[in-house]
Amino acid sequence: MSLPPTDPSSVHGLSLKRVAIDTYRENVAYLHRDCAVYRAEGFQALAKVQVRANGKTILATLNVVDDESIVGCDELGVSEDAFAQLALANGHPASVSQAEPPESIPALFRKINGERLTREDFAAIVRDIAGHRYSKIELTAFVVACNRSELDREEVYFLTEAMVASGRRLDWQEQLVVDKHCIGGIPGNRTSMLVVPIVAAYGLVFPKTSSRAITSPAGTADTMEVLANVELPFDQLIGIVRKHHGCLAWGGTADLSPADDVLISVERPLAIDSPGQMVASILSKKIAAGATHLVLDIPIGPTAKVRSMPEAQKLRRLFEYVAQRLHLSLDVVITDGRQPIGRGVGPVLEARDVMQVLENHPDAPDDLRQKSLRLAGRIIECSPDVRGGDGFRIARDILDSGRALAQMQAIIAAQGTRNFDHKHPALGVLTLDVKAECGGVVVGIDNLQMARIARMAGAPKVQGGGVDLFVKLGDTVAMGDVLYRIHASYPADLEFAHQAADRFNGFSIGSADQLPQVFVEF
Amino acid sequence: MSLPPTDPSSVHGLSLKRVAIDTYRENVAYLHRDCAVYRAEGFQALAKVQVRANGKTILATLNVVDDESIVGCDELGVSEDAFAQLALANGHPASVSQAEPPESIPALFRKINGERLTREDFAAIVRDIAGHRYSKIELTAFVVACNRSELDREEVYFLTEAMVASGRRLDWQEQLVVDKHCIGGIPGNRTSMLVVPIVAAYGLVFPKTSSRAITSPAGTADTMEVLANVELPFDQLIGIVRKHHGCLAWGGTADLSPADDVLISVERPLAIDSPGQMVASILSKKIAAGATHLVLDIPIGPTAKVRSMPEAQKLRRLFEYVAQRLHLSLDVVITDGRQPIGRGVGPVLEARDVMQVLENHPDAPDDLRQKSLRLAGRIIECSPDVRGGDGFRIARDILDSGRALAQMQAIIAAQGTRNFDHKHPALGVLTLDVKAECGGVVVGIDNLQMARIARMAGAPKVQGGGVDLFVKLGDTVAMGDVLYRIHASYPADLEFAHQAADRFNGFSIGSADQLPQVFVEF
Repeated sequence: MSLPPTDPSSVHGLSLKRVAIDTYRENVAYLHRDCAVYRAEGFQALAKVQVRANGKTILATLNVVDDESIVGCDELGVSEDAFAQLALANGHPASVSQAEPPESIPALFRKINGERLTREDFAAIVRDIAGHRYSKIELTAFVVACNRSELDREEVYFLTEAMVASGRRLDWQEQLVVDKHCIGGIPGNRTSMLVVPIVAAYGLVFPKTSSRAITSPAGTADTMEVLANVELPFDQLIGIVRKHHGCLAWGGTADLSPADDVLISVERPLAIDSPGQMVASILSKKIAAGATHLVLDIPIGPTAKVRSMPEAQKLRRLFEYVAQRLHLSLDVVITDGRQPIGRGVGPVLEARDVMQVLENHPDAPDDLRQKSLRLAGRIIECSPDVRGGDGFRIARDILDSGRALAQMQAIIAAQGTRNFDHKHPALGVLTLDVKAECGGVVVGIDNLQMARIARMAGAPKVQGGGVDLFVKLGDTVAMGDVLYRIHASYPADLEFAHQAADRFNGFSIGSADQLPQVFVEF
Repeated sequence: MSLPPTDPSSVHGLSLKRVAIDTYRENVAYLHRDCAVYRAEGFQALAKVQVRANGKTILATLNVVDDESIVGCDELGVSEDAFAQLALANGHPASVSQAEPPESIPALFRKINGERLTREDFAAIVRDIAGHRYSKIELTAFVVACNRSELDREEVYFLTEAMVASGRRLDWQEQLVVDKHCIGGIPGNRTSMLVVPIVAAYGLVFPKTSSRAITSPAGTADTMEVLANVELPFDQLIGIVRKHHGCLAWGGTADLSPADDVLISVERPLAIDSPGQMVASILSKKIAAGATHLVLDIPIGPTAKVRSMPEAQKLRRLFEYVAQRLHLSLDVVITDGRQPIGRGVGPVLEARDVMQVLENHPDAPDDLRQKSLRLAGRIIECSPDVRGGDGFRIARDILDSGRALAQMQAIIAAQGTRNFDHKHPALGVLTLDVKAECGGVVVGIDNLQMARIARMAGAPKVQGGGVDLFVKLGDTVAMGDVLYRIHASYPADLEFAHQAADRFNGFSIGSADQLPQVFVEF
């Protein structure tokens, strides 16, 4: 029997309509319940359908509507994301048909049932994810099925490789393209904003793209946004790196490992951060950005993501295995993650800390300066001209001489300067001082709780919201001394942060011998 | 510090609006992007929010809208499901605030990370699921994390118990309340529609509620709907069972194990049917319906859900363990699942088969008759008056004498008769005969493929669509003999079914010694 040339379920005669609902990366199609197509084709609610218009095809999840003002019986509604993908005008002729399930669904079902997948399986799954062909349900199933130790290291390599292939891959035509990354979890840890200008001033190409905060009170992109525009058109971003050797931009516009962004949309609400997914997410972004050498920061501490040295070493080996398979030179450094870095937690507060370090201001937080110099030194040592051990001194000279500040100012100007006076930062005007309930030595600062309080206070959405730490681990306090100040811009935010701090203020006071010890490389 | 008496994030002054989008069991709230509440509160898209109106509170997922005709800046839109739960008029004052995550989320995260959960954990999770407090993402994570052998049998018991507690539990005030269930997977297997009238005629209380087809071409509720109304108000359903000892109704109105219905909404698209979830789903429904004695049919065959006797025995033991913990008397029968039961596959075709058996028509399919009599016999033997081994004879006498037919007619009349003439059933008028490509003995009929072809032909939505089998396992055919006839009502459906049958018609022709043997109890 010969098959008919056209899909018999494809029905024409509908008129495209933008339905201005932001469905957050899920394509949704809306049909009226009385639409002839809906009745005749026996569509099911939440089924995947194929929308065709002007030769383009997209997949969408079907929602059924009973209100003609949203879609009429002769209209085919599509959500904002989907409308943008079609790039057509309202009223354009469109058709809808039952969608075949995405090609990779059998592989997904095998992973749900605990099977090991092949390189081709991962390639097919990630292609479908990046192509928006997975529903939220399918995405979640993939993420949960890959959680824990369900992926062996070869599978993590396959997944990373497939994620790199899902988007653009930059080629800088350079021998040496450096990058740095931290696995996260430490509030105030804004070393990138110091490492980039130092290393770029030294002359290495350092195309640093960053994410916005996912669960933290500020990502590098959020903090940099206080100083400069971070949402740059792709071509401008390339031009800035070519001219200034570095940038500090949001990575969302560059189409690097787009499957990662889709996966994060379900990983975030489930608080999933398994080793396999962390490695694939971080390395795919860096490789897609064209990095040849990466310095990776794994902080370790009682309230950090990684709590023990054996755990850190296991994670390091997984990163190293996958990096080596993908020909990325990787230098893992295990750092002190016992407490927040610097003083401020929140975009404006952290920007203030960064600028103080760049200006060699006497109040500049020394832990942020030291950590940044050591990381910058390790990156500078990637250069064949530099002897192992000399990087730190080179970095310090660049910072002390003001060349790092000048480099940062050039990058800020190139990206587009924001109006920020770090000597009088626009902090949230509503404040609350949290005080020591007894005297003694500060022996613990809970990273998770400090992040939670800063988020309650509005960070990162409210730039001036957050927490300003007055004391750090090892400092001696008297009862009633201020431990930190909460800044907020809205009464409700201050009240929420106040309640959170009231439940647990994040600080432990005791005696010097109770200070947690961690072995770290620096 | 004293906490303020009211939640500071709760903001009043919005006007409730029904947004007529059927979101399929997920509560969705719609706020305009320029709504002051959205901006001030820093809501995130897809975040869970709490909607309050007239003292009622529901949880919903937030969607952001850019079109004033869907919701204005002073309106709070809610999807149809959510609007029905609030049961208020458009324009009623309403407020919205950030929702605390559901109480059971820490337990969900522990299950995602592979921990064993306690009885209290399962109770909390199922309470939140039945209360529509889980998003699709959270539901999917729970289902996938519980998949495979991730639940031990004690956890399956906890889950089942929690699902029973999530809804109504009927108490018939009877010593003996019987029920039957099949784990599914065999097309045409409409034994319930024969077992219920036989056993009810014998006098046992048999409140049979059924589901509609989930992935099959017809569920018992779909087939019964050809003959009678199946969507009965709860009180009417109770009255029919009291008067006629039995019913054949759709279970959706009875609020029995409602968490199960929510879970199915994500299990279906993922084709997840793990033993633990199957046991919890089936037993929770039956116990909630008030059954004291259950006969459970596990078909076994090369294309059945259960493929081997060891697998069937393992599943039987899990069912028995959980049933015993919940004080349900359970009789598991392992049956021949090598091929479809009866001749018709699809609602009208199956209704025809059932009525032929009830009328003792010479064309009545004998396999459907024999299986139904044996199952009915097993149930009748639950009665203390009946000796083991006598049930079959009693059931046969009831069927042969016409008492089963009379009982069925009474039940149909009580539920509300539909206009159906089983001697001239309203089959889909578009037909296609699928013929043997060679001569020999029928040695295989693929259950999955026959179900797929019948669904392509429109079943169950198109009642007259489906497949009518002309030959069965062991029959001898000549080349060109008709194996089965496809019935459809729409050209596109016939074409789809045709294409599916063309790829694989589901039949294997060979020699008698190739017939698959399965050991079954009857």
